[in-house]
Amino acid sequence: MKLTVYLSGEIHTDWRADIARGVADAGLDVELTGPNTNHGASDDCGDQILGAEEKAFWKDHKAAKINALRTRKLIADADIVVVRFGDQYKQWNAAFDAGYAAALGKSLIVQHDPALTHPLKEVDAAAMAVCETPLQVVEILRYINRDN
Amino acid sequence: MKLTVYLSGEIHTDWRADIARGVADAGLDVELTGPNTNHGASDDCGDQILGAEEKAFWKDHKAAKINALRTRKLIADADIVVVRFGDQYKQWNAAFDAGYAAALGKSLIVQHDPALTHPLKEVDAAAMAVCETPLQVVEILRYINRDN
Amino acid sequence: MKLTVYLSGEIHTDWRADIARGVADAGLDVELTGPNTNHGASDDCGDQILGAEEKAFWKDHKAAKINALRTRKLIADADIVVVRFGDQYKQWNAAFDAGYAAALGKSLIVQHDPALTHPLKEVDAAAMAVCETPLQVVEILRYINRDN
Amino acid sequence: MKLTVYLSGEIHTDWRADIARGVADAGLDVELTGPNTNHGASDDCGDQILGAEEKAFWKDHKAAKINALRTRKLIADADIVVVRFGDQYKQWNAAFDAGYAAALGKSLIVQHDPALTHPLKEVDAAAMAVCETPLQVVEILRYINRDN
Amino acid sequence: MKLTVYLSGEIHTDWRADIARGVADAGLDVELTGPNTNHGASDDCGDQILGAEEKAFWKDHKAAKINALRTRKLIADADIVVVRFGDQYKQWNAAFDAGYAAALGKSLIVQHDPALTHPLKEVDAAAMAVCETPLQVVEILRYINRDN
Amino acid sequence: MKLTVYLSGEIHTDWRADIARGVADAGLDVELTGPNTNHGASDDCGDQILGAEEKAFWKDHKAAKINALRTRKLIADADIVVVRFGDQYKQWNAAFDAGYAAALGKSLIVQHDPALTHPLKEVDAAAMAVCETPLQVVEILRYINRDN
Amino acid sequence: MKLTVYLSGEIHTDWRADIARGVADAGLDVELTGPNTNHGASDDCGDQILGAEEKAFWKDHKAAKINALRTRKLIADADIVVVRFGDQYKQWNAAFDAGYAAALGKSLIVQHDPALTHPLKEVDAAAMAVCETPLQVVEILRYINRDN
Amino acid sequence: MKLTVYLSGEIHTDWRADIARGVADAGLDVELTGPNTNHGASDDCGDQILGAEEKAFWKDHKAAKINALRTRKLIADADIVVVRFGDQYKQWNAAFDAGYAAALGKSLIVQHDPALTHPLKEVDAAAMAVCETPLQVVEILRYINRDN
Repeated sequence: MKLTVYLSGEIHTDWRADIARGVADAGLDVELTGPNTNHGASDDCGDQILGAEEKAFWKDHKAAKINALRTRKLIADADIVVVRFGDQYKQWNAAFDAGYAAALGKSLIVQHDPALTHPLKEVDAAAMAVCETPLQVVEILRYINRDN
Repeated sequence: MKLTVYLSGEIHTDWRADIARGVADAGLDVELTGPNTNHGASDDCGDQILGAEEKAFWKDHKAAKINALRTRKLIADADIVVVRFGDQYKQWNAAFDAGYAAALGKSLIVQHDPALTHPLKEVDAAAMAVCETPLQVVEILRYINRDN
Repeated sequence: MKLTVYLSGEIHTDWRADIARGVADAGLDVELTGPNTNHGASDDCGDQILGAEEKAFWKDHKAAKINALRTRKLIADADIVVVRFGDQYKQWNAAFDAGYAAALGKSLIVQHDPALTHPLKEVDAAAMAVCETPLQVVEILRYINRDN
Repeated sequence: MKLTVYLSGEIHTDWRADIARGVADAGLDVELTGPNTNHGASDDCGDQILGAEEKAFWKDHKAAKINALRTRKLIADADIVVVRFGDQYKQWNAAFDAGYAAALGKSLIVQHDPALTHPLKEVDAAAMAVCETPLQVVEILRYINRDN
Repeated sequence: MKLTVYLSGEIHTDWRADIARGVADAGLDVELTGPNTNHGASDDCGDQILGAEEKAFWKDHKAAKINALRTRKLIADADIVVVRFGDQYKQWNAAFDAGYAAALGKSLIVQHDPALTHPLKEVDAAAMAVCETPLQVVEILRYINRDN
Repeated sequence: MKLTVYLSGEIHTDWRADIARGVADAGLDVELTGPNTNHGASDDCGDQILGAEEKAFWKDHKAAKINALRTRKLIADADIVVVRFGDQYKQWNAAFDAGYAAALGKSLIVQHDPALTHPLKEVDAAAMAVCETPLQVVEILRYINRDN
Repeated sequence: MKLTVYLSGEIHTDWRADIARGVADAGLDVELTGPNTNHGASDDCGDQILGAEEKAFWKDHKAAKINALRTRKLIADADIVVVRFGDQYKQWNAAFDAGYAAALGKSLIVQHDPALTHPLKEVDAAAMAVCETPLQVVEILRYINRDN
Repeated sequence: MKLTVYLSGEIHTDWRADIARGVADAGLDVELTGPNTNHGASDDCGDQILGAEEKAFWKDHKAAKINALRTRKLIADADIVVVRFGDQYKQWNAAFDAGYAAALGKSLIVQHDPALTHPLKEVDAAAMAVCETPLQVVEILRYINRDN
């Protein structure tokens, strides 16, 4: 079974690499995709490509839309969307992706520390699995790929 | 023009009442809907109706799903979804609603303080209007309702 | 909030009347719909309207399709589909309705005795709430209808 | 014609292997998919990957959702869904899959003993073919694959 | 239960009136809709409204598209589409409507003389009921409307 | 037959009033909707409600999106979209509406002078009728509304 | 440009071979698909695979549904559906396919003798092209495949 | 990331070649598609393949529909639709494509001179990016393709 899995959310730790390593070690037929994780490039792409803005709002607006060209395409192509919430930042884009994926009928896996259970209860309620670690995400991918 | 507008997000200030008053004062044919805004009832409905859980995760899970019975129905019935972000709490359910509404093709209006522009840029990028005050939301509803 | 709720499943006990009474007592704006619950008429409608069949398979086939004219319409029009499993009969049509409603994106409430938890786990997993009694179904409808 | 066929239902006899052999013998371009058929692993995957639950309900719930990550994907990818009902167990998941597939517009083939005709009449009514044996399923696949 | 039923097909006999009378006599909450049944107006509406054409093809083309403005709307709004085949004319528009309705997921009732069974087998195969008389159509509508 | 008809396009002549008068004179059950036709208000609504922009691009952007809140809703609710092209201005919004409506599966009526046939051929090709005058639009609405 | 083209309709002349030859001669990247064109096998497949029926209606019914397993899949996979009407037989299945394809949003090409224009006007009105000969179908496929 | 990008709009300058060169130079995994850009062939294909028409309207009509067989297919297959507006001609087909793509949920990039901002504001409002040059389109494609 070939699976395409989009890894949404936190971009400040190595969790995507952890999952990639686990998937490779298990020899799974899983394609991992995700957003541009270069924070600076992601913030500045609008101004750099389309020209500078004086107002921060429009700078952010242009950048967010260019990034959406990528994320909308990859979420639409995914079988499963994994959304990880870390312990820093607002991470509203992660929750937005979770809602977006849920409404498209994508299967959702959420991964976060149990300390975040209460504020994430609506997101978790839409998920097929709520993991505490990236390793558990890998274990799920391995399990649903096994042939009997 | 009859409009149905779902008011998602913050439940700790009177912004929904502000919009309701503005809509009534302007005599608009707008039905306002929203989630259960009683924080305690919203947290406890799962345990109270279906029986107590020892683990906080399952208590939250059951409550979140019962609340989703209401919110999914009302978002699906809405023409416009207004999502307000306040200055407190994680508000991941608000961002989730925004993503969910966007993927359903609902028109989105986001309302928040300019101080939140950067972390909300992906949500704002999906919106048809980004307001700073509830009054601006009313002004938009009034404008799109006028007959010439 | 006006809700349309389809009551699927068991037709040999009074559970639909229990829910109707609870909804009426609570003064909820809920329209309850359901299948033809006259077992004999439901089995014989094909032969009686379209002519007798010698083979039981075709008699059942014609009846099931005529009944589907009603159930497909009412499930499609429902906001919420409640499926009750009793302790008798195969009840595959109830599970079929649950799957059908789930794939249409309808919110699902399942109601059954805890003794049936294991064989119903896939159905329960698709539900927004799993109740043990019809009264709990009424409580959920009452809760999601309340205005604050 | 390349066909993807999902084999849902009974996991206690060799019917999937019978179909696989028939498809291979006929040299058909048919990819056969299905659920995890290891009963124990299927029941325990939630606890084993995500941690043990004290309540049977939540153990089953977590397992059923992880299994759904696989089954939803494979049913969505299938051209035809074959659902077999055996003579044991409740098999509500099989009927759920049938309803789910029907609502997605998938072509359905049901396979069961004639003794089950009456309780399966609603499921059969949604099918393009009702077979008594796995061999008949193979014959249908062979027929619709032939080039004139 | 309020039903909207589109009556497609033959326009040279009184079958629509027969169904309307049966529905009225039974006091059913059924709205009957259908195409323009004035043959001459239906053929000439293109030329008369938009100007004459020399080529018969374009005259027919303009008329068929104007008529489609009505039929597409009413089929889209229908719960059930009844298609009757008579013993005269090609009636390809009736078969087209049947296919169109089937692909939209509308429930289909086909009504024709048994003599037409073989050439109509593909249309009948997509139907929930195949009637021989308009009275049987009325009986089905009456049956699915009864409250127990 | 109740029809909802959205009147898109040119805002500098009285064609909407002509159609409204014709519809009223014929006593048709047709609801006519359309965009805000006050050119100044339509251009300035973004700046006036959400605050002034220095760049013309963002002023236009905010206004166009607020107007889209209205037009998207009304096009989505329409049975038929009429698009009129006049002899002045670029009118790209009219052509955009036509494409938008076509992709939503709305029935399209285009109205323009024959002199514009060649540059409008792709738009006309998507239409159910191409009229030269608003009166012809009324005649079509009258025809598809008549009861035999 | 890779195109998948389903060839529906008449099975008593060599028109499919004519198109195949034209496509091959032009070296087009077009995959041609179609129904089972063996008339006898197509009529008898139900009885032969699933067992004999005494009533002609059920024999036809079973066969038509098995054939639909193939045709529904191939029409769903097609970019373009070509429907040819010959001068014999009722050909209601061809008109049904045309309506079915139109409602799925498939591009339709109809091919028939001009003598059939009037009875086919509703089918032609849904088409992107109406051809008189199979060669014209090939010419269209060649034209839309050319690279400038 | 493999992207399919449809290039709609102006056919009188070399902008498609500029984008193709930029994509090739950057080594991007991007498939570029577009309409037939041979103006004469595009205008005459209807008459040449299906026979000459006396009225210009029908000549244009047949040609536009044959061209639509290509453009509808390629827009439906595209991840991103780029629409360029030049400084000549009406270009209503470009705006129609933009609306059509927007309603299908395709990501839109618009490219035009700033002088056209006001008349294109509704089209721009539906876009994920508004570029002034083809090079900026290439830069966006390059950015969303980069792996970190």
